[in-house]
Formats: sequence, structure tokens, C-alpha cells
Amino acid sequence: MGISLGPNQYGKSEVRLVTVRREGAVHHLRDLTVSTALRGDLTDTHLTGDNSAVLATDTQKNTVYAFAKQQDVGEIEDFALRLGRRFVRTQEKITSARITIAEHGWDRIPVDGVPHDHAFSRAGGETRTTAVTVRENRAWIVSGVDGLVVLKSTGSEFHGFPRDEYTTLDETDDRILATAVTARWRYQGEGGIDWAGSHREIRRTMLETFATKHSLSLQQTLYSMGEAVLRARPEVAEVRLSLPNKHHFLVDLSPFGLENPGEVFYAADRPYGLIEGSAVRDEAEEPGPAWTGAVL
Amino acid sequence: MGISLGPNQYGKSEVRLVTVRREGAVHHLRDLTVSTALRGDLTDTHLTGDNSAVLATDTQKNTVYAFAKQQDVGEIEDFALRLGRRFVRTQEKITSARITIAEHGWDRIPVDGVPHDHAFSRAGGETRTTAVTVRENRAWIVSGVDGLVVLKSTGSEFHGFPRDEYTTLDETDDRILATAVTARWRYQGEGGIDWAGSHREIRRTMLETFATKHSLSLQQTLYSMGEAVLRARPEVAEVRLSLPNKHHFLVDLSPFGLENPGEVFYAADRPYGLIEGSAVRDEAEEPGPAWTGAVL
Amino acid sequence: MGISLGPNQYGKSEVRLVTVRREGAVHHLRDLTVSTALRGDLTDTHLTGDNSAVLATDTQKNTVYAFAKQQDVGEIEDFALRLGRRFVRTQEKITSARITIAEHGWDRIPVDGVPHDHAFSRAGGETRTTAVTVRENRAWIVSGVDGLVVLKSTGSEFHGFPRDEYTTLDETDDRILATAVTARWRYQGEGGIDWAGSHREIRRTMLETFATKHSLSLQQTLYSMGEAVLRARPEVAEVRLSLPNKHHFLVDLSPFGLENPGEVFYAADRPYGLIEGSAVRDEAEEPGPAWTGAVL
Amino acid sequence: MGISLGPNQYGKSEVRLVTVRREGAVHHLRDLTVSTALRGDLTDTHLTGDNSAVLATDTQKNTVYAFAKQQDVGEIEDFALRLGRRFVRTQEKITSARITIAEHGWDRIPVDGVPHDHAFSRAGGETRTTAVTVRENRAWIVSGVDGLVVLKSTGSEFHGFPRDEYTTLDETDDRILATAVTARWRYQGEGGIDWAGSHREIRRTMLETFATKHSLSLQQTLYSMGEAVLRARPEVAEVRLSLPNKHHFLVDLSPFGLENPGEVFYAADRPYGLIEGSAVRDEAEEPGPAWTGAVL
Repeated sequence: MGISLGPNQYGKSEVRLVTVRREGAVHHLRDLTVSTALRGDLTDTHLTGDNSAVLATDTQKNTVYAFAKQQDVGEIEDFALRLGRRFVRTQEKITSARITIAEHGWDRIPVDGVPHDHAFSRAGGETRTTAVTVRENRAWIVSGVDGLVVLKSTGSEFHGFPRDEYTTLDETDDRILATAVTARWRYQGEGGIDWAGSHREIRRTMLETFATKHSLSLQQTLYSMGEAVLRARPEVAEVRLSLPNKHHFLVDLSPFGLENPGEVFYAADRPYGLIEGSAVRDEAEEPGPAWTGAVL
Repeated sequence: MGISLGPNQYGKSEVRLVTVRREGAVHHLRDLTVSTALRGDLTDTHLTGDNSAVLATDTQKNTVYAFAKQQDVGEIEDFALRLGRRFVRTQEKITSARITIAEHGWDRIPVDGVPHDHAFSRAGGETRTTAVTVRENRAWIVSGVDGLVVLKSTGSEFHGFPRDEYTTLDETDDRILATAVTARWRYQGEGGIDWAGSHREIRRTMLETFATKHSLSLQQTLYSMGEAVLRARPEVAEVRLSLPNKHHFLVDLSPFGLENPGEVFYAADRPYGLIEGSAVRDEAEEPGPAWTGAVL
Repeated sequence: MGISLGPNQYGKSEVRLVTVRREGAVHHLRDLTVSTALRGDLTDTHLTGDNSAVLATDTQKNTVYAFAKQQDVGEIEDFALRLGRRFVRTQEKITSARITIAEHGWDRIPVDGVPHDHAFSRAGGETRTTAVTVRENRAWIVSGVDGLVVLKSTGSEFHGFPRDEYTTLDETDDRILATAVTARWRYQGEGGIDWAGSHREIRRTMLETFATKHSLSLQQTLYSMGEAVLRARPEVAEVRLSLPNKHHFLVDLSPFGLENPGEVFYAADRPYGLIEGSAVRDEAEEPGPAWTGAVL
Repeated sequence: MGISLGPNQYGKSEVRLVTVRREGAVHHLRDLTVSTALRGDLTDTHLTGDNSAVLATDTQKNTVYAFAKQQDVGEIEDFALRLGRRFVRTQEKITSARITIAEHGWDRIPVDGVPHDHAFSRAGGETRTTAVTVRENRAWIVSGVDGLVVLKSTGSEFHGFPRDEYTTLDETDDRILATAVTARWRYQGEGGIDWAGSHREIRRTMLETFATKHSLSLQQTLYSMGEAVLRARPEVAEVRLSLPNKHHFLVDLSPFGLENPGEVFYAADRPYGLIEGSAVRDEAEEPGPAWTGAVL
């Protein structure tokens, strides 16, 4: 009976890297969580425990820290590209590397209204992300945001859905719509992009679309957000979104003789709707391995 | 052998309440997590299961929602006072209520630079809190903040500590100091205070002190923050702070022939130092039950 | 500029279902977390908000609860198949459904050494899982375990890895090897299997292999576990494993004049190695959509 | 205006300690999370940053690891006593230490039915805990369990509670009762106790009482559990319990023409009832600082 090694990769996950760049008295802070995954001919270690092609995950971690010192980290997309290329170029059996980075934002603390030189406060739960896949002759960049929590208190309807014997949900023409946006966008090409500016504008476009698009379903909102990004940003080939429908249920106050015209809500934890979808530019190049992440 | 009922209380925890107040087209959003705890003569239910004095926790939850409709929630301190007084005044056997509320902030999404009428994004991980203890003739208010994460990249030293046979830590005159502030302040009296303004100014004072106070120990920073609040805010009797020392360790890059003069750090998860302390106004009234929370 | 809808699906996530089956005085408890995802022609709701093909996620939730009443839940694989087929067969535009279920175990509380009729304690953090993909004429079943945390205190080496300028890790011929097993196995065919027995034997095989296989790398351990399952269980086509290397570092006690020959360890949180891989039966049928889960 | 230092303490939290004791081929594994907190005259560091009395938290961590090597860890109560006494006896300004330890259980993996020498699997989410407070001439020991999740599917009623204008809850004579037990018991004296045996019997007594006591309220169940421990274990002075009421709501299946006589439930996350209480032996010695933990 033949058995073979199937899909596999390995690396170091969640390397916590904080850097301080000192420009005179003014300090610049960066806060990243970096993960690496290497792919290639790793049959030997799996079948016989021969590790001659296995760059230790500890070495991968060290590389992250050393690179952060040798050159300014810069944008996370560029840092990921440098790391990925390092692994692919120096390890004979490694044919591909996938570097994922989450950046945690910090604001300067205002003192008497002036941003402080070296004191900071965390900017919230949202993170900026990138996942860069490097092969010998090509790289793919997918950037995104995690944990962008948004809510609109009107401008959202949901009706016209099919009713079967298990349907009890009332139709509504006014509900709270809330979600925690996980967005990923695939860039065309492999560089020459103002990553920070692109991130900022994509984020702004998604937020404005969420706010202003009258919603007949969370799917419609999702697609509108992706479409708006593609219309505004030619550097983007594709946008994928995962939007939990964070249900806010109207509390039934009628037992207490009270009406509740959209004023008092219960924010539920579970279960939640989960809407996943994407908008793709028709003439976009093929994604190749851009979206291939974990084996499981 | 005699056995008696000792300290006890009961209530509903983490009632998730979201309210929308509609001022024409402009919506005002509030997002609270409310917990209730009732105390009094509850011997019967513990010893015999006689529930005639046990206002159901489900009823406590309903009261939260109904009160949110019957009158504008207002500041969380006032809402907690109303809820606590309700339970103490209407339940014969209940002599004390402790209401704790966490408020989660939302910002208006800017569209073309203008804050949107009814679309919001979460303002980060920080929450504003209050814990109000009500007895028949008196109430105590302890407010605070949770999850205010701050970091200064210089202006922090740590030396002069004792060295015993298990001490290996180097002295330092320049380190990163980072913490997640949990602060609680006890108000004098039981009302007549601009709660929102007080919260805003206390928060500002703590942040500015953290930023500007040159630190010889996290304890010194802690006390300075508390002391500054007491100097600035006569309405506060006492400030208590719990400050995890979120260690940022310099990465040793010397094996790679690299120096690391305060530039590349590893942000550790565990273990962490935990510094807890308080500053008290000398002439402050006694705290009474203000700080008495969970039985465990 | 053309823009199209790309990959998408939607459903209800984390429906918490607990059932009690009463066999006289003896109760049988089941505790499941069920998630549904529907796929098909959902263009209308994304582009225009026309929901005529969108079975509400609330209805999907109701279906889970109603089905749990109408027929004994049985094995999670069978329950998932029934749910998936229901959605595909009754919704014209829905061509595929993916149902994932996690089962949380409970043990009977022993009283005087006898398992109690109706009192239970949670059996730990491990869960049994299944992900069933249903199309009109075929179904695919991938089952697994989550959170099976294991450790061996010897019988694990790691050496022979390449050393570059960033390598500082020492080689070792005796280390702690610890991981939290996430395993998924794809079944051949679509039924007629003793799901519970198969799960039990696969779990036992993985545990025994982890315990007895002398390890030269976590990759080798991983592959051995997968290979052993395939050798023992003809009903399985493929096994995929995701194994975080939960590092246990020897504490350096030499500053205190103490040796530490593998006795005192620091269990680190982050970063961690992450080893992902799979073993595939050569003659296995193609996986089709079996492994296709979330869009992101 | 006078301002003074109020309650304070400091230490190292969540030191992750794993030890392996080798008895020939048979290994014995221990897995602890240790936290330390020191109290005493710490005014100087708070007011001036003079750290001459501040044993570094890093040194406290080192002491944990060194002590684990110098003598077998033994029962967590004894290990905590040794650590606490060390700090109080060697640091002139430190008058009290509080050491808290959580122990995470591991089972031997059975191979062919025989427990393996050196391979283990985690025993579930429950932990055994202790919190030991040491002063110069006395120590107090409070031990406990965390995360003991239990459920009974019948034998629980709730009725006879007061109904006011906000009460909608139906009375019931048959409901699911589920909770996650957090228990703490205070020992009489300061040693000479079979800690492991006491823990095992207390845990067994609580479980058996939960299972067999017909419940008219969770308060009654709580008190019965505490009382049963005090009756069975003369070494215990007091038992405190914190029991979240993990609500399992009957799903209303009547819209689908289905009855639901206690068979299909929705396990809710939030809000939850929270019942806290204690049983105290009448002639027990005073608790002193036994229960005084965090400043906040």
C-alpha cells in the first residue's frame, strides 16, 4: 500500500517584533507580529527525520530580528518580501516562502495638545495585515485589515427571502447592521506600490461604502465594498471579505407595556451569520498561490 | 457542628445593551455591558431553596432593558445608580446592590471628512467602567478605565534593586516601559458630578503623567499617575491602579555581529510583572463597601 | 471595467445545540456546535440585494434545532449529512452545502463509583469534529479532532539542521516535544462507516504513534501519525495535521550554580513553531471540494 | 493637601514552570503556573523611585525556577509555602508574600492499555489551585479548583421567586442546571495536611453533591456543596464558590409543530446568572489575610 507526503509547510508563528527608530528626540515605534512558512522538498525530514534541508524555525525567528536591525523595517509588504526572498534564495530545497505580518497601530499621546516624542497609546483592536508568497521568480502580495468593527443603526433592510417550514424570521425594513470586517485584497504585480497609501485609501473606501450604501443584505454591502475598492484602486486585482453578521436583536419590551421602535437592542454573541464573498476584476491576472495559506 | 452561610451575592452578568437615540437623522449610539449583584438576607434560598426573596436574574436583565427605554441611559454612573436603587427599594430582603457597567466606545465614520449620521466604527479596546454600590441610605461610586495600553520608548530606568543569589537582571538606565492600565477611582460623595468630564480629565491626566514622568520604577509611575489625579480632581478620594509590566526585551543580536542600542525588541507575553498600588487623599472619607466586589 | 462576484458562501456559525435523550431514568447528553455554509447562484443578493434565493441564516439555525428533535442526532457525520442534503435538495439555487460540527464531550459523574444517571462533567478541551460537503450527487466527509494536547518528556531529538549566519540553536538529542494536535482525515466514499469507532481508533492510533515513535523532528512525528492512521484504517484516504511546536525551553540555572539535566523547563507561549503536513494514500480518490472551507 | 500610598503589592505573574522527574525510565511530569506578590514597606519606590527594597520580579521568577530544581516541587501548597517564606525571610522590608499556583493535569497516554513511561496528554481544562499568604509568624492556605464544568439534565427546579412588573420568566420544575465551578477552600492551620488527598476528596464531595442534591436554586446547590465539604473534611474552615449559571434554554419548536419536552436546548453565552456564596464553620479561626488577593 503506497502512502505519500501530501501538502506541507513549516515555520515560526507569531514572532513579536517591536522596533524603535530614534530621530533625535523623536522616536518612531513599530509593532509587528510576523509568521513565516517555508515550502519545498521536505520529504526527508518527514520520512526519515533527516533535517539537512530544515532551516530551524528558531533561525527563521532570528532572521526576522536581524533583518529588522539591518535595514529599517519600512512597510510590512516590503519587509515580508525581503524575508521571503532571503529564505527562498539561501535554502536550496526551499522553493517558496509565505510571510504573514500583522501590524498593531500606536498613536502618540498628546500632552498639552502636542503629540509626545516617545510616549504612545494603542490605537485600537484593528490590525493591518499582509501575506506575501515568494517563489524564485515571482511574488504575490495579499494585504488586508482585521478587526475593523463597524455598525450602522439604520439604512439596512432584509426581506424577500424564501420562507419554508422552518422560517420564523420577520422581514424588516430597518435593522442594525454590524460586523467585524476581515478584508484581504490581492495586488496586481509584485511591487512598486505605495503600500501605506493604498492601505489607507482602501480602508477609507470600504468604510465610506459601508456607511453610505443602503443595504438590502449583508451580501450586497459586502460586494459593494469590494467593488468600490476595485473601482477606486487599479493596483488591486481582487478583494475578499469575511463579514460576521453581529446580530443586534430588538428587545421585546411589550410585556412591560413599552414600545421599542428601534431603540433598545441585545447584542448577541452566538450564533452569528457569516457572510463571505469577493469581488474580482475581470481582466485580473490569475491568483496563483496568492491565497494558499495554512494546510488546514 | 455548626455551619453558616458566609459572604454571598447573586445577579446577572454581562447583559449586552445597545441603544440608539434618534435625533432626527442623527443617531446616538451607546454600547454597554451591565452586570448586577444583589445582597441581603438570602439565607432561605441557600438553606432550603425557598426563593421568595430571590428576584430572578432574568428579571434583573429585563429591568436593565426596560430602564434603558424608559429614560435616556445618560452617564453610566447615573444609570447604575438608578438600577441599584430600584433593586434595593423594591426588594424587601435586598439591602445592597452592586451594579457594574463597562462602556464600549464608538466613533462616527467620516465620509468626505464629515462624521456620518448613523454609521460608526469601534473606538478601540479601551472601556470606561463604573461600579456603583447602593445601600438604602447611601451609594458609593468607583469609576475607571480598562485596557488603556501605553508604552514609552525611553524615559524609564530600573536600577538600585537588591541583588541576591538568584538575581541576574542587569540594571538599566534606558528601557521600554509598557503597560495596560486598569484604573479605578473612588468618588467622594454620591452624585452631583460631571461624570463624563471627570472621566475625560482623569484619563488625560493619567496619560500625560505616564508620558512625562521620568520613571525609575513602574511603582513610581503608578503612584505619580494616582497622585496627579488626586491633585487635579477634588471629586476623587482615591485612585487604584493595576499595571502589568509588559516586558519588551532587547534582542541579543551580537551572535550576528550586530549591535542593538535600544532598537529591536521582543514583546513577551508571560510571565509579566504585576504592579498594583494606590494613592489616597488623607482626609478622604472611609471607603465603606465601595471596593467590595466579587466574593471570590 | 468589468468586475464580477468571486468565491462566496454564507451561513450560520456556531449554533450551540445541547440535546437530552431520556431512556427511562438514564439521560444521554450531546453537546454540539454546528455551523452551516451554503453555496450556489447567489449573484442576485450580492449585486442587487434580491434575496429570493437567500435562505435566511436564521432559518438554517431553526433547521438545526428542528432536525435535532425530529430524529436522534446520532453521529455528527450523519447529522451533518442530513442537514447538508436538506439545504441542497430544498433550495433551487443552492448547489452545495458545507456543514461543520464540533462535539464537546461529557463524562458521567461517578457517585460511589457508579456513573450517575443524569449528572455530567466536561471531558476536557478536546473536541471531535466533522466537515461535510454536500452536492447534489455526492458528499465528502472530513472528520477530525481539535485541541488534543500531548507531550513527551524524552524520545525527541533535533539535529542535523543547516546552520547559516542567523542560526544559534543548539543541536539536541533529548528535548521535550509538546503539541496541540489539530487533525483532519478525509474518508473514502460517503457513508456506511462506523463513524464513532473510526474516530476512536484513529485517535488511539495517533496517540500511540506520538508516544512510541522516536522523533528526530516534529515533521517526522507528524508524518508517522498520518501514515499509521492510513495503514490501520482503510476507510481513510488522507490525513492532514497542524502541529504547533509548543516550545519547552530548559531554564539556564548555571548562574545559581545548578545543573539542569532536563528537569526544569519554561513553557513558552509565542512564538511557536508550526508544522503542517499530510499523508495521502496513493490510490485515494481525488478530494474534490472536501478541503474547501472558508473563503478567507 | 496630603496624599499617601494606599494598598499595594507587586510580583511576577504567570511563571510557566514544567518539571520532569526521572525515576529510571519512568518520567513524572508537573505543569504549574506560579505567580508571586510581595507586600511590605514599599513607600520609597513609589514616592522616589528608590528601589533598594524592591526585589526584582525577574529575581522572583528565577527563584521559582531555582527552587524547582533544588528540591522536588511536591504539592503546590508546600511549594508555595517554601517560596513565600523565602521572600519574607530574606527581604527585610517585605513583611508578607502571596504565592498563587495553578496546576495543570496530565494523564499518561495508554499504549496497548499500559500507561506510557514518558508520553502524556492534557487532562482537560480544570486546574487545581492554591493561594498561600505568608507573614513572618504565620501562613494561610486557600486551595481550590477552577474550570470544573458540570451539568445535570434534570433534578433542578426554579420557582417561587417574586414577580414584579419586569418579571417574565416562567417557573419550572425541570430544567438543565449547568455551571463552571470555581471553588476555594480555606484550610485551618498552616500545614500537616495531606494536600493531594484533601483536594481529591473535596473535589469528589463537591461533584457527588452537585449530582445528587435535588436543586431548588443554584444557591441551594452551592451551599450544599460547601456544607458537604465542611462536614466531610475537618481540615477545612470555609468554602467559597462562584457559580455562573450557564443557561440552557429550551428551544421553542412549536412554530414547526413540534413539542420539546426537555430535549433540545440552546446553550447561551451571555448574559449568565452569577451565584457567589460560601459556607463557614462556626468555630473556624478568623481568616486574617487569607482571602486578600489583588488590590483591584
